[in-house]
Amino acid sequence: MRSFSTFFLCAIISWTAFSQSAGSPWEEKFRAIPDAGRQREYMQRLSARPHHLGSPYGKENAEWMMNKFREWGLDAKIESFDVLFATPKERLVELVEPTRFKAKLQEPTVAVDPTSNQQREQLPTYNAYSIDGDVTAPLVYVNYGIPEDYEQLDRLGVSVKGCIVIARYGASWRGIKPKLAAEKGAVGCLIYSDPREDGFYQGDVFPGGPWRPRDGVQRGSVMDMPLYPGDPLTPGIGATTSAKRLELNEAKTLTKIPVLPISYADALPLLGALSGRVAPESWRGALPLTYKIGPGPARVRLNVKANWDVKKIYNVIVTIRGAVYPDEWIVRGNHHDGWVNGAQDPISGMVAEMEELRGLAELLKQGWKPKRTIIYCAWDAEEQGLLGSTEWAEEHADELKQKAVLYINTDSNGRGFLGVSGSHTLERFVNGVAKDIVDPEKKISVWDRTRLLRISNARTPEDRTEVRTRPDLRIGALGSGSDYTAFLDHLGIASLNIGFGGEDGGGIYHSIYDDFYWFTNFADTDFSYGRALAQTCGSAVLRLADADLLPFAFTNFADTMRRYIEELKRLLRNMQDQTKEKNRQIAEGVFSAVDDPKEPTVLPTVEEIPPHLNFSPLENAAEALTQSAERYDHAVRKASPNSKAVKSLNAKLIRSERVLTDANGLPGRPWFKHMIYAPGFYTGYGVKTIPGVREAIEQKKWKEAETEIVRAAKVLSDESALIESAAVELEKEIR
Amino acid sequence: MRSFSTFFLCAIISWTAFSQSAGSPWEEKFRAIPDAGRQREYMQRLSARPHHLGSPYGKENAEWMMNKFREWGLDAKIESFDVLFATPKERLVELVEPTRFKAKLQEPTVAVDPTSNQQREQLPTYNAYSIDGDVTAPLVYVNYGIPEDYEQLDRLGVSVKGCIVIARYGASWRGIKPKLAAEKGAVGCLIYSDPREDGFYQGDVFPGGPWRPRDGVQRGSVMDMPLYPGDPLTPGIGATTSAKRLELNEAKTLTKIPVLPISYADALPLLGALSGRVAPESWRGALPLTYKIGPGPARVRLNVKANWDVKKIYNVIVTIRGAVYPDEWIVRGNHHDGWVNGAQDPISGMVAEMEELRGLAELLKQGWKPKRTIIYCAWDAEEQGLLGSTEWAEEHADELKQKAVLYINTDSNGRGFLGVSGSHTLERFVNGVAKDIVDPEKKISVWDRTRLLRISNARTPEDRTEVRTRPDLRIGALGSGSDYTAFLDHLGIASLNIGFGGEDGGGIYHSIYDDFYWFTNFADTDFSYGRALAQTCGSAVLRLADADLLPFAFTNFADTMRRYIEELKRLLRNMQDQTKEKNRQIAEGVFSAVDDPKEPTVLPTVEEIPPHLNFSPLENAAEALTQSAERYDHAVRKASPNSKAVKSLNAKLIRSERVLTDANGLPGRPWFKHMIYAPGFYTGYGVKTIPGVREAIEQKKWKEAETEIVRAAKVLSDESALIESAAVELEKEIR
Repeated sequence: MRSFSTFFLCAIISWTAFSQSAGSPWEEKFRAIPDAGRQREYMQRLSARPHHLGSPYGKENAEWMMNKFREWGLDAKIESFDVLFATPKERLVELVEPTRFKAKLQEPTVAVDPTSNQQREQLPTYNAYSIDGDVTAPLVYVNYGIPEDYEQLDRLGVSVKGCIVIARYGASWRGIKPKLAAEKGAVGCLIYSDPREDGFYQGDVFPGGPWRPRDGVQRGSVMDMPLYPGDPLTPGIGATTSAKRLELNEAKTLTKIPVLPISYADALPLLGALSGRVAPESWRGALPLTYKIGPGPARVRLNVKANWDVKKIYNVIVTIRGAVYPDEWIVRGNHHDGWVNGAQDPISGMVAEMEELRGLAELLKQGWKPKRTIIYCAWDAEEQGLLGSTEWAEEHADELKQKAVLYINTDSNGRGFLGVSGSHTLERFVNGVAKDIVDPEKKISVWDRTRLLRISNARTPEDRTEVRTRPDLRIGALGSGSDYTAFLDHLGIASLNIGFGGEDGGGIYHSIYDDFYWFTNFADTDFSYGRALAQTCGSAVLRLADADLLPFAFTNFADTMRRYIEELKRLLRNMQDQTKEKNRQIAEGVFSAVDDPKEPTVLPTVEEIPPHLNFSPLENAAEALTQSAERYDHAVRKASPNSKAVKSLNAKLIRSERVLTDANGLPGRPWFKHMIYAPGFYTGYGVKTIPGVREAIEQKKWKEAETEIVRAAKVLSDESALIESAAVELEKEIR
Repeated sequence: MRSFSTFFLCAIISWTAFSQSAGSPWEEKFRAIPDAGRQREYMQRLSARPHHLGSPYGKENAEWMMNKFREWGLDAKIESFDVLFATPKERLVELVEPTRFKAKLQEPTVAVDPTSNQQREQLPTYNAYSIDGDVTAPLVYVNYGIPEDYEQLDRLGVSVKGCIVIARYGASWRGIKPKLAAEKGAVGCLIYSDPREDGFYQGDVFPGGPWRPRDGVQRGSVMDMPLYPGDPLTPGIGATTSAKRLELNEAKTLTKIPVLPISYADALPLLGALSGRVAPESWRGALPLTYKIGPGPARVRLNVKANWDVKKIYNVIVTIRGAVYPDEWIVRGNHHDGWVNGAQDPISGMVAEMEELRGLAELLKQGWKPKRTIIYCAWDAEEQGLLGSTEWAEEHADELKQKAVLYINTDSNGRGFLGVSGSHTLERFVNGVAKDIVDPEKKISVWDRTRLLRISNARTPEDRTEVRTRPDLRIGALGSGSDYTAFLDHLGIASLNIGFGGEDGGGIYHSIYDDFYWFTNFADTDFSYGRALAQTCGSAVLRLADADLLPFAFTNFADTMRRYIEELKRLLRNMQDQTKEKNRQIAEGVFSAVDDPKEPTVLPTVEEIPPHLNFSPLENAAEALTQSAERYDHAVRKASPNSKAVKSLNAKLIRSERVLTDANGLPGRPWFKHMIYAPGFYTGYGVKTIPGVREAIEQKKWKEAETEIVRAAKVLSDESALIESAAVELEKEIR
């Protein structure tokens, strides 16, 4: 579901010179198995027809995979759920003033692309979980439609109240755009793909190149996922046939206003009919017009009606039972549903996962017996709001909380550099894995290649020195946008999200052109990175499944927490400094002096300076965490625990992520239980670390910020105590 | 000649809490005189028809102004020179492969704009002083065509050898583009106006708005002015009828390859026919296409032939003889020629100068007798390469060197903020003047308004603190682009360039649309800033003409020199650090690791690290300068010199800028004698301070850099000695 650009920015953020558990001979054998040609075959089959939630081909794909896994000798089954899914009944976008223009809302067939003509099976261009509505109102351009854009509109004296906003895709997850627009009083929302983001501005358009053509449209869900993902009617519980469901009008994650996505060909006459203030420079896209804000004189009618059906979804679940610790689960997943033919998203990731599974099946045949249980999942209905993974995680919540060691996710893949985000207790581990994978283009380790990229991209000499001297590459924190969300954020299961990318771009995301033709012409065309992805994730699974002591490590985590706390302090300090400076400039008359009387702005007023907050609970917790992490690290290096000790220790290690959750969840969104990582309430995919505190500061809720500091400090203290007790236990095993 | 955007960036850079010489009662009287309505009338008359070099209306304008000045009771005359001027005989730009397209090369008449139809008198769209040539070659896009663009092309493995380059206007003076292209082996050069710079990307286009329409073209000179400006045939001497002239083929300032400017409507099919690598993001303009570099498959024919005529030019010179110090001259000028109707450029400045002059004439009638001689000039032929002012300055060089106190230039004017650049020995003085001028929009002083803008625009808290605490606003250093060049750079006469701007933009620069209709609809429409400009420059002239001790001050100058020296040291240090870092990354394999094999680049090779240079001569000179400047400042505050002492002191003060020159000039361009300020050899307009040293470092000429450090240190030491002797002389007058 995540677009590569977004994915890549988040993913390639951060990585250890030594790996707590080295690879076994089985790993070496494993890495020789994943095959590029087979991935190509799987992709051709899985993307041959549209395979979205509820489609016949989606079900066929699930069954085909299950049968394939069974052919390989594996224990595979399908687990179904029944979920709410809105499909379009009526769609209309029409400019009614000052001239008339009716939007096409249709992606044309492309002659050279053999699957682009399957219109009967394609989902039309639309945003799932938009409410029904038929509104006619003046149009207003809101740039990306993110919070700072509305701040800018306030300065320009422009209100969106009673208007239909038109926002461009980018800078946030799409669902934020109608959510904020509705909060600001808009009555409708259009989202278009500006050619600056993923069209001709970037390169040749499809089919001549990989970028979005003029009529290309990005479908996508606009469900309010930062509130809760998954089936809108069954928050917190599995959407089984017998589950107790909300009424449609009780579902809180549907949008408040109607929304439709459009192509830039459809957007051009609309934007061209806007008058009023010229948009600020950073708001301008690549269309050949003067970007203006409006509102009006353009008036637009937007009509959206959906079929509100409950549809069956099909998760494919493969279980390889552990020989020693069957109740410790390594969970691995990728979704199999696409918006249309979905070759890149998600099949490029799915086919790598299939080859991992074939590799494991081969090892099993050769006599390998994993110590732990391995569960491989192919999720359905990710695109509409992580439904397959969320319902499965909710349904199996108790068992997962008891048994899951971690969850490893992939979702699409590309050519280039390894990107990893996830739980920082696994940062050292995943660095170790990455050192054993060979980059197909450069024949150096994928770890080396990413490290060299970071040296190249470092913005400051200090950043460069860190990359050069820190044993591990930092990994990014997880926000949302793929199937790890329920595992990490709802259940507190350590998670990793892994993928390659950065060398190819494209503009086919969530369009009919994301298909086999596109992928095999413009992406990882020889599937060599598909092979590298299978090697990376498979090696991680093997290493985890067979490790004696689970390879969690806490010094990197402690180091990361200290950084986050420093960030929070800096965030508050900057807000204080900026408010002071702004108040001073108001007193000096700066705003009035620089204001052009022919282009007047709304002059700012004096604001209260943000108070100082007591960060000491967090700082003390981080200090304790640092000490217990170092003590544990030292004990791991010295101890050789016996198997009984190991079992007890692993039980603690498995709890190390659970401890970071709080049963009450985050303020205003109790589904999100993790106190360290969450998608931002106003970013959607983008992560907010220590989210309770960070968002309270951002939203200037000072009392809540103080409370949240204490809650976040509590989970870090608990984590510290847990690690300390594990260290004490290990120290007894030092001989 | 200078476009407002360029002008404004350079001009609003830098400014004193106290003014050495306060305003007299005559000043107050003067400031009441300049009138907005009269400026409007003058503009309507002066821009009624095309008035370029050699045009009948240009001559008529000169005569009309002379007669007007005489009517006002002033001593006005015309001084003529005979200069080389190339006008188009043949112009052709044609795409010959892969399809055919012939460029229009014509700006259309606009119905609502009454002067846009004077095609018979308009100069066609062309670049003056392009050599003749007829070439057909593959096209290559070079972005702005500045040095870093060619570095980028080298990294991409693209050569322009044997090609015609197409560059967009912007980022440098236009003459740099063909100069560099020729150095790199190109055979022709096209320059086009990308709508991103001054077209629809910025706002509504003419006539609906102020910005450049699709067929609008920027004319302009491509003479190699950084070598020497003025008549190409008479470098260093006045182009009088009897002057000894070079042959045309000896003239070094003509281009080496043919050049033509084109509109973006003409550029679109050419750029659209390019293939090859997609241009880097910062190279992309606002045209609706994927910007690619080429070369080819587009092949273009470029044919340029000129009439190489010698034409008469007409400077209008007004002399108001000084009553006390007739041999101390205050010189003031603005050019009167335009590229076509030239309302904004230059008439908006010219009409302010006229109102100044009418104000002085009024004061004279009321009995005012200026102590010093005041010379007002209206220059001809500025647009083609500062010909009017340069020839006049060269012709009167000896007398000017003896007598000129300073030169004050204006060239076009707009609405907004006061911008001043010039000699830093006048920084405190001009700050004092600016405090006495009222901003027409905000009713605060123009000094206050600019100061508040600087607070608003400050990039760092340190910059903001400086603006808040330094008594004077810093003024920028002068590069080139208007008529101060010969005075400052060739003769060493302290100069100031003054103008208002920053609130209105536009894209009519050097087009037929820069006319009365455009100016009175989109610029300083009520001429209130024309009035403010006349008040500012007139007040400066009055204050200088009547001051006892000339208001030069040296502590600001010394402070500025210390900054420049720090900049030079930092420049070298950065080059050393960057080279070291690059060499290290080469050794680490960074460039190879990040290089995409599907988009390969030329990997860099290890480079020698720039040596350390001996900056101590400059540092010692700056230290001595600081001390003598402070000593002089102290003496000025304490002394009350008698008139004999004043005369001797002023003679020294007048020499204070002359001392900053070296008779041998800068390396490779002896016409440029000033050792502190010069236009960059590869920037054209943009200033290079302490240019001998700075350009030697930039061009990695380490031996030359050492020599130039000694030469620059010498002029600063001489300056220090001169100021010291003035201080000693003043100290004798302390009673």
